Amino acid sequence: MASAEETVDSFIALICERDVDSACELLAEDVVYDNVPMAAVTGRDAARSLLAPLVSSAEAVEWVVHRQVGDTTTVLNERTDRFLIDGRWLEIPVAGIFEVRDDVITLWRDYFDLAGFTAQVSPPVDP
Amino acid sequence: MASAEETVDSFIALICERDVDSACELLAEDVVYDNVPMAAVTGRDAARSLLAPLVSSAEAVEWVVHRQVGDTTTVLNERTDRFLIDGRWLEIPVAGIFEVRDDVITLWRDYFDLAGFTAQVSPPVDP
Repeated sequence: MASAEETVDSFIALICERDVDSACELLAEDVVYDNVPMAAVTGRDAARSLLAPLVSSAEAVEWVVHRQVGDTTTVLNERTDRFLIDGRWLEIPVAGIFEVRDDVITLWRDYFDLAGFTAQVSPPVDP
Repeated sequence: MASAEETVDSFIALICERDVDSACELLAEDVVYDNVPMAAVTGRDAARSLLAPLVSSAEAVEWVVHRQVGDTTTVLNERTDRFLIDGRWLEIPVAGIFEVRDDVITLWRDYFDLAGFTAQVSPPVDP
């Protein structure tokens, strides 16, 4: 039995290895994956469908955990999620909420500023 | 000596009492107050200048803490910050990061979606 924090650490490590399938094995089948400014989705398959294109489009993925605190079932962290895409690092400042039961993540909710993200994906054209 | 969580709990309770001056006594003089989608400010006076108009414009303030985990110096929480303004509840889903030293908050960083907030402050006009 892993601790809640160990489960989250393993999940993040697998994402950074761009191994989405193995990472998703650490999500409950009925996981709720909620990007707060966007819609929440339910289910491991739905979560994988969101994660896979983002991760596979990146040449490298680094999720830098700045702070993380957990108890037996809840893990909260502060991260910078970095994706190397077309030679440029996309960086998303994120606060993450994780609920873990029986070694799998049942809730994953990320708080971030959507406009700050989309501005990086579609940077304004120079005048 | 209060625990880091007790300091954060007291701070939030004072905000909910709309007692900004007492709340700000729990901020370090050189506190960093960072609303992630906006600019960070440094100093208790600067933090008070941001907080006071928001809190005083509200008839009631409720910060609902959904989850909170802390260690000796770090407290992370998930909240809905609610402000009753002109008879309407403005609700901001927030993830908060707090660093506490010597019973005062040295860092307070809130992650939220700015567009989701401004849409409530300036709701679209009905067609």
